[in-house]
Amino acid sequence: MAVEKLVFTDKLAMFQDQWSPKIIAKMNNVHFKLAKIKGEFVWHSHPETDEVFIVISGEFEMQLRDGKLRLQAGEMCVVPKGVEHRPVASEECAVLLVEPAGTVNTGDAGGALTAFYDEWI
Amino acid sequence: MAVEKLVFTDKLAMFQDQWSPKIIAKMNNVHFKLAKIKGEFVWHSHPETDEVFIVISGEFEMQLRDGKLRLQAGEMCVVPKGVEHRPVASEECAVLLVEPAGTVNTGDAGGALTAFYDEWI
Repeated sequence: MAVEKLVFTDKLAMFQDQWSPKIIAKMNNVHFKLAKIKGEFVWHSHPETDEVFIVISGEFEMQLRDGKLRLQAGEMCVVPKGVEHRPVASEECAVLLVEPAGTVNTGDAGGALTAFYDEWI
Repeated sequence: MAVEKLVFTDKLAMFQDQWSPKIIAKMNNVHFKLAKIKGEFVWHSHPETDEVFIVISGEFEMQLRDGKLRLQAGEMCVVPKGVEHRPVASEECAVLLVEPAGTVNTGDAGGALTAFYDEWI
């Protein structure tokens, strides 16, 4: 068939590394990526695109320069392009990222947590 | 703050009508729409775009010309552009649609179930 069922729990069982988004689907030029996050990410922004975070399991804190949001499963947010943000998770959290193909996880910040190549799973 | 937390259950409590997607977020030119579906939709395709279905609660059957998929909460699929499909739900199911702004729910089919204007909630 031209259409495949994607099961988040099955896909999440396929990898363990954190802060390393895995592409599971593509809609036009937009990638859907699952990531496991734990700990503090780097402050960064994406000058060229908005970015969506949908929480699949667990919870995390989205830190912003003017406040913070606590997001748990069944919740999402859109970080507008150019807005600095930093995800922080005290326990491992699974998120579905939705953003244009080619978006780099650390945006304009770079550094050790940069995933230069997002793998399909 | 520049970023808002969106809670699917809160948004779903704001409307009752079925087959009438409500926009809850925008990422660049892409809309995120919640819809409640029950019964049989019309066969249709979107000649200009892929379309993503993420199940938030309940389950439904995605009928395709060459088969069908049963999708439940925690699962998603991408219907490629031009591929005929028909969602069918025996009980009410809540789905998150992800597709370019301006995508019409009935695609190339039209008819009574067409939502000509998608409302923001």
